[in-house]
Amino acid sequence: MRDADLDELTIASAGRLMRAGSLSPVALTEATLARIERLQPRLNAFITVTADVARQQARAAEAEIKAGHWRGPLHGVPISLKDLYCTAGIPTTAGSVILKDHVPDFDAPAVARLLAAGAVLVGKANMHEWACGVTNDNPFFGRCHNPWRQGYIPGGSSGGSAAAVATRQGLGSLGSDTGGSIRIPAHMCGLVGHKPTHGLVPRFGVFPESWSFDHAGPIALTAEDAAILLEVIAGPDPRDPSSLPGRPPALRPGLRQGVRGLKLGLPADVYFDDCHPEVQEAVMAAVEVYRSLGAEIVAVPIPEARHGLDLCLTIAWAEAAHFHRRWLQTRPDDYGPDLVETLASASAYTAVDYLQAQQVRAKVRHAYRRLFERVDLLISPTGPLPATPHDVDAVMVQGRSASVLGLAAGLTAVANATGEPACSVPCGFTEDGLPIGLMIHGPRLADGLVLRAAHAYEQTQEWHRQRPSLRR
Amino acid sequence: MRDADLDELTIASAGRLMRAGSLSPVALTEATLARIERLQPRLNAFITVTADVARQQARAAEAEIKAGHWRGPLHGVPISLKDLYCTAGIPTTAGSVILKDHVPDFDAPAVARLLAAGAVLVGKANMHEWACGVTNDNPFFGRCHNPWRQGYIPGGSSGGSAAAVATRQGLGSLGSDTGGSIRIPAHMCGLVGHKPTHGLVPRFGVFPESWSFDHAGPIALTAEDAAILLEVIAGPDPRDPSSLPGRPPALRPGLRQGVRGLKLGLPADVYFDDCHPEVQEAVMAAVEVYRSLGAEIVAVPIPEARHGLDLCLTIAWAEAAHFHRRWLQTRPDDYGPDLVETLASASAYTAVDYLQAQQVRAKVRHAYRRLFERVDLLISPTGPLPATPHDVDAVMVQGRSASVLGLAAGLTAVANATGEPACSVPCGFTEDGLPIGLMIHGPRLADGLVLRAAHAYEQTQEWHRQRPSLRR
Repeated sequence: MRDADLDELTIASAGRLMRAGSLSPVALTEATLARIERLQPRLNAFITVTADVARQQARAAEAEIKAGHWRGPLHGVPISLKDLYCTAGIPTTAGSVILKDHVPDFDAPAVARLLAAGAVLVGKANMHEWACGVTNDNPFFGRCHNPWRQGYIPGGSSGGSAAAVATRQGLGSLGSDTGGSIRIPAHMCGLVGHKPTHGLVPRFGVFPESWSFDHAGPIALTAEDAAILLEVIAGPDPRDPSSLPGRPPALRPGLRQGVRGLKLGLPADVYFDDCHPEVQEAVMAAVEVYRSLGAEIVAVPIPEARHGLDLCLTIAWAEAAHFHRRWLQTRPDDYGPDLVETLASASAYTAVDYLQAQQVRAKVRHAYRRLFERVDLLISPTGPLPATPHDVDAVMVQGRSASVLGLAAGLTAVANATGEPACSVPCGFTEDGLPIGLMIHGPRLADGLVLRAAHAYEQTQEWHRQRPSLRR
Repeated sequence: MRDADLDELTIASAGRLMRAGSLSPVALTEATLARIERLQPRLNAFITVTADVARQQARAAEAEIKAGHWRGPLHGVPISLKDLYCTAGIPTTAGSVILKDHVPDFDAPAVARLLAAGAVLVGKANMHEWACGVTNDNPFFGRCHNPWRQGYIPGGSSGGSAAAVATRQGLGSLGSDTGGSIRIPAHMCGLVGHKPTHGLVPRFGVFPESWSFDHAGPIALTAEDAAILLEVIAGPDPRDPSSLPGRPPALRPGLRQGVRGLKLGLPADVYFDDCHPEVQEAVMAAVEVYRSLGAEIVAVPIPEARHGLDLCLTIAWAEAAHFHRRWLQTRPDDYGPDLVETLASASAYTAVDYLQAQQVRAKVRHAYRRLFERVDLLISPTGPLPATPHDVDAVMVQGRSASVLGLAAGLTAVANATGEPACSVPCGFTEDGLPIGLMIHGPRLADGLVLRAAHAYEQTQEWHRQRPSLRR
């Protein structure tokens, strides 16, 4: 297939074409691998490219589909995985030199489900070291660049996944989100990133940052594609004790029901405090779109939102320090300098600090649960700033210096504290061409409603059809 | 009524007599108050005696029953409450001078349910300061004595409840159990003490030691009485987020079904390691009773049992340090010297220590869950030693010095870590007349089965009919 044709595909459209026999999984995979070969030196979206595996899976998919056995919309579709998803026989590094030679002998359940659905694995995506940051400036595997502007961060920690999907190096990816690590790169790369309800996607075989804040979920080109991926990977697995029992809700049947009559909360408080004016403008324009689609917009105060980041920095970092406790003792030099310092600080947090944060978290959860008795969904910016340049750790905001990490995760982390679903969907670009994301946040298990609202907005817009410059 | 008649009563028998009109709630309450007046100087089982409240409630009960409105087996029955249950208009100290003037304006849900069932509150029982120990040597309200031997500990932390019930200063009591605080005093005072499944009894309005280890439950004269109390206080309350939803299981209907065909696990590992020979002998005799009743006895290894105490000392103390964090700063002198030192140590536990303990706890939980796929119940000693003298903090066991706290809670704490139900039932006496308890431990929500096994054993024995010497 022609390289330009690749830019037109989504998972949904590729699936339809392949089912109809007018797109070959082998041809799509070859075009994808050719693009990876061309872009990898510039974007560095992958830690491991799995060309041989991909070719073999593509051939198998092609043969099955030709024989009339179509497994579903992922059959024959190239995808990537953040390199903390365990893959049988394929290196899985979690972005760390400690695991550079680690080859699991099993697939994480989420991966096994993708492969059983016929997906073609083209590679393991670059990520922030151990998923602990937003720049994806990996000290061992190199920095990953934003496809919209080289030298800029793709966001993180699932930055490689986002850079790959934005450039069709695979039509979708799985990331993980502890304080925003799916939504932040989606926002910064012009994609849909969905953090599911906690427990919907099993995390067994996904290297943890923080067991109580981590979520596994999709990064995709559209809300529909995110729904396709999430439907496949959701569902209980006994090896993850936090995975929710019972059949997960179907997502795609309701996707096209629109937003008429829905009550959308527009939060005040921290959500707009540090917002770049262009981000604010794009989000307010999206609000007007929703109003025009028949949604009711309600201003809601949610002062508890401001605890989200602190909770993440206390609880998630303490849990990360616990996970890393042995290696911090035995292999401190095998961590990037920033990370080892942060984990060492977190190692000294007291149990009382941790419990205090858990107590605040319970109050925040309660406040959001109450809020969702009044509104169906919340809409807000995903982050206050678009992508920043690599090597910039802090920026001036409203006359004070603020860390890029704190700003990037400042609005996203609260949904990790509550475990509620939240999605970032493209809602515009800055004047100098950097993507802006709109966050849609819903009550527990309302993943379908969140994606439906994302889809309804998307149908009226062209943002998600823009192509980054760094794709050729 | 004659004082001697009081010694023959249980909740069940008093209830039957009152329903039949042959026992007056007012007379029973007066006899109980007279006994309290006589015993309080010697046993010090109460922090607050609520004679006026009791008389008023007894009169109301008497009038209602006479009018044909019988509320159930607790109607008109005198009971006490460990002084950490909030009672509207009645002081609630949690055994601390900090709360000496604390008068709640609400009843804890468990209390409200007892009162709604017609129970008569005779007093708030003495307890170990803040429920943090097993001696009940309260630095502010005085030590409580074991009714079987003055100068000996009643066990704790619900020691006042046990001392009161053993001497019919009220026919039942509510205690709380964080590492054994219901079962240890039941064992040491010759009573039935039941720690329910975690979440079965709401803990709102019950001062916490540790939110994840605390359980509220009954101390009673018989298994049937424990079931009567538990049936009344069990059930969800929205103010305790850990309380289990749904209607709690009925306990009494199955109480008389016996143990024929049940598989009872007899754990090896730590359960008998430090056991006093007389305790071991009594428990092994009880095992033979169960065999003769048709139960199958299976020896089971459960090496995870040895983590129970450490988990409690790490997790429960850290959670206690969190609860006390402000007063430890502002009012350190208002703690007993031992407790302030322990809480200060626990304040320095790291979040990593705490999380490590929670990880071990998850493994212990899993091990017990698996074990209960093979056996219906576990039977073991409740504690390795009978009651020890006050002022003895450590004893020699097998040639080494061991703390009384560690020994007392060494076998009980694991059920707090797992949240499973466990009951102590009298199974004998030492040669010098101190009671010995048998622990029956079951899987989650098998409270009915635990009490049924306790009842079946009790029916063949006379231990629970013995009367302590210090009751006149």
